[in-house]
Amino acid sequence: MATFSYTIPLPIRCSTTGHKQDPNKQNLNKIKITGTPTRSVKVDTLSQTAGVAKTSVALVENGHISNEQTRQNIPTKKQFVDYHRQGLIVEGGVGYRQTVVIRSYEVGAGKSATLESILNLFQETALNHVWMSGLLSNGFGATHGMMKEQSHMGCLKNASPGGSIPNLVDERVLQGGDIVEIETWFGASGKNGMRRDSLIRSQATGHVFASATSTWVMMNEKTRRLSKMPEEVRAEISPWFIEKQAIHEDVPEKISKLDSNAKYVNSNLKPKRSDSDMNQHVNNVKHVRWMLETIPDQFLESHQLSGIILEYRRECGSSNIVQSLCEPDEDGILNSGLKQNNDMSPLNRFSLASEIMEGNGPLGSLDKVPLRYTLLLQTQRYTQNEEIVRGKTIWKKKQSNNELSNMTFSI
Amino acid sequence: MATFSYTIPLPIRCSTTGHKQDPNKQNLNKIKITGTPTRSVKVDTLSQTAGVAKTSVALVENGHISNEQTRQNIPTKKQFVDYHRQGLIVEGGVGYRQTVVIRSYEVGAGKSATLESILNLFQETALNHVWMSGLLSNGFGATHGMMKEQSHMGCLKNASPGGSIPNLVDERVLQGGDIVEIETWFGASGKNGMRRDSLIRSQATGHVFASATSTWVMMNEKTRRLSKMPEEVRAEISPWFIEKQAIHEDVPEKISKLDSNAKYVNSNLKPKRSDSDMNQHVNNVKHVRWMLETIPDQFLESHQLSGIILEYRRECGSSNIVQSLCEPDEDGILNSGLKQNNDMSPLNRFSLASEIMEGNGPLGSLDKVPLRYTLLLQTQRYTQNEEIVRGKTIWKKKQSNNELSNMTFSI
Repeated sequence: MATFSYTIPLPIRCSTTGHKQDPNKQNLNKIKITGTPTRSVKVDTLSQTAGVAKTSVALVENGHISNEQTRQNIPTKKQFVDYHRQGLIVEGGVGYRQTVVIRSYEVGAGKSATLESILNLFQETALNHVWMSGLLSNGFGATHGMMKEQSHMGCLKNASPGGSIPNLVDERVLQGGDIVEIETWFGASGKNGMRRDSLIRSQATGHVFASATSTWVMMNEKTRRLSKMPEEVRAEISPWFIEKQAIHEDVPEKISKLDSNAKYVNSNLKPKRSDSDMNQHVNNVKHVRWMLETIPDQFLESHQLSGIILEYRRECGSSNIVQSLCEPDEDGILNSGLKQNNDMSPLNRFSLASEIMEGNGPLGSLDKVPLRYTLLLQTQRYTQNEEIVRGKTIWKKKQSNNELSNMTFSI
Repeated sequence: MATFSYTIPLPIRCSTTGHKQDPNKQNLNKIKITGTPTRSVKVDTLSQTAGVAKTSVALVENGHISNEQTRQNIPTKKQFVDYHRQGLIVEGGVGYRQTVVIRSYEVGAGKSATLESILNLFQETALNHVWMSGLLSNGFGATHGMMKEQSHMGCLKNASPGGSIPNLVDERVLQGGDIVEIETWFGASGKNGMRRDSLIRSQATGHVFASATSTWVMMNEKTRRLSKMPEEVRAEISPWFIEKQAIHEDVPEKISKLDSNAKYVNSNLKPKRSDSDMNQHVNNVKHVRWMLETIPDQFLESHQLSGIILEYRRECGSSNIVQSLCEPDEDGILNSGLKQNNDMSPLNRFSLASEIMEGNGPLGSLDKVPLRYTLLLQTQRYTQNEEIVRGKTIWKKKQSNNELSNMTFSI
C-alpha cells in the first residue's frame, strides 16, 4: 500500500448495487459506547486497547508536546473505537464504519455531493480502517510484513490520495448536512491480491448512495512492478478478509483502448501543485476530474453518473503532460439491455432501470444518446504516449428532483 | 448571507496572529456530555432544545422518510450541541466550536494541510454556527428578518462556498490525522456590517494554526448592490456579537489595482463544472487557487504562505472567462520591517519574525526576493475587464521540517 503505481494493467472495477437496502447493515444503536465523551474519558477507554492517545494527552498536561507524541503515531495494536472520527470496528472485528456529515463544500452545482467528495470519503475511511487495524508499520499503508522486505515490497493500490473508486452515485440525493455511514472492509482477490470494498449510506434510512470495489496487488518499490504476495503478508491480512461484496460483477467489463481518433480530446493538461498528493503523484481525484471534463458539457447537464470503472496502468508524476480522450459507446444502450438479460450484472441494472422507468424498453432506447463513454488518460509525449488510466462511465438521464426523491427514498 | 455577490468594493481582511496560544481557548473537558452517544440517546437529548433530529428518527422507525424530514431541516430554535458534527455552542452561548480530524486528502504535496482545506473548514464551521443559531429561515444563510424582505435583502458575504478567508497558515505543521478545534463567532463592524472571525487550533496543545476575519454587509438581491441593515436584522444578530477578535488590524492594508503591465498573467481561465458552488458561482476556493497559481512555481517551492488579504469586488459567474494577474511587491520586505516597528500589526509580525530567526534584521533582508505579492482576478472581455477580487499575499521562507516543528510546538 505504499504508492499508487502500476507497470502492468490492473483493473479496478466498480458497478452499481441498485437501490435495495444493504442487508448487512448493522444498527449503530446496538453498539453501546459508555462514558462521557470528553477528552479525559476517551483516553481512559482507549488505553485499554492501545496507548496512542494516552501518550499525547499526558504530555499536553505537562505543557509540552513533540511531533512523536501527537495523533500521527500509528497504533501498534488494534483499535476498536475512534471517537474523534466517529469510527467503529464492525463486522465481527474486521470491518470499519464511520459516521460522517456531508459538508457544504462537498456539494456541487447540482446541490448534491460530488463524485470527487465521495471518492475522497472512500479514500479517507479506507485509510482510517487500516490505521485502526494495528497492521501498519508506516504512514503510507505498508504492514509490518511488507516493511520487513521494505526495499522490495509495496502494495499496488495506495491509501493516500488514490484509494477506492465508487460506482453508483446518486448525486441528486446525497446533500450537504446529510448524515451518512461509510462502511469499508477487505476481501480476498486471487492468490496475490485483495479487494477493498466500501459503501456510503444514509444513517437514517439505510439507503445506499454509492458502493465501490477495488483490487489491490503488491508491487516492488524499486522496480515499480507487480510482485507476489509473500506468505507472511497474506497471514497478516487474511484474517481481515470477509466474503461480503459491495458489488457483484461476474463478467468483467472490457475497456477498449482509445487512440488519437477519439471523438473528444483535451490536450496539454498540466498538473498543478495543488493536484499532487503527499507522494508527489497526481492524485486519483484529479484523474477522474480530467476524464469527466472531456465529456461534453451538454451531455453532463442532462445526465448523471451511475457507474465508473477505472483500470490503472501507470503512475502519473507531477511533471507529466497529460492528454484526456473520450469516446461515446455507440452500442452503450443495446449492450446495457442485453447484458442485463444475460447476467443480471449490477453494473448494467441501474442504467436499464432508468430506461424502463422512462417508458422505454431496452431496445426502444436505441435512438437515444449513448449512455456509456470510454475514456483514456495518457501521458503526452513527442515519442510515445503511455496509458495512465482507462475508464468507462455509465450514465442515466437526469430525473426531476421530485421523481428522483420518490424513487430513491422508497425502499 | 444569500449569495456571494459584490457590486462595490468590499474588503475582507485577514492577517496573522503569530504563534501565541489563544488566551480565549476553552477546554473541551469542561463541557460534559452525558449519556451513551447512540442514535436514540442523541434524539432524547436534542429534543430538549429542538425538534429537528427527533422528527427524522421517529419516521425512520416507521420505515419511511421524506425529504422534508431529514437533517436538511433548519432548526427554528437554537441548538447547543451537534453530536454528529462534534459541534458545541461556546463563549457564553454565542460562539461555535467544532472538533475536526484533518483528513488524508486535505493534505497536499507538502504533507501538510492545504490552504484550500482550511478555507473549506472555515466555511463549513461558519455555516454550522449559523445553522445552530436558529436564526436561519432558509438554507443559504438568510435570517428570518432578512427573509421578510426577501425580494430586497441578502447578506453580501455568503455562507455556501465562499465564506471566511484565513490568514496565517502554518502549512507545514497541520497534518493529516491532527485533531483540531475550529472556533468561530460574530462581531460588530460599523453600522451596516458584521465580522465573522474564525481560528483553527490544535486540540492537544492549543497552538493556533490559522485565524481569519471577514467583513459582511447586506445586499439587495435584485440590484446586487449593498444595502443598509434594517433594525430588525440588527436586532436579530447583534445578541450574537462578541468583542473578541481573531485578528487585530489597526491600519487596513491598501491593495493597489494591477493592470496589464503586471509581471505574471494567466489568461483564458475557464471555470469548470466542478468549480461552481450550489449558486452557480465560481467558488471562493477556486478564486484563491487561480490567484496562487499565477505566482511562479520556483517561489512557491521555497516559500510558504503566512497571510492573505482578499477584497471582493464582483460576482464571478460560471460563464466568465477569467484572467489572473500577479506582481511581486518590490518594497515587501522593507514594509514588513518598518510596519512592525510602527504599529506592531500582526499581519507583519510573522514575516518579520521569520526573517529575524534566519539571522537577518529587517533591513538586512532588502536584497532578498520580495515576500509579498499583489494579485488581481478579473473577467476577461473584449470591451472592458472587470475586477472580481484583489488580493495580497504575505510569505515567509520555508524552514526545514525540524526547525519548523521546534518553532511551532514550543509555546
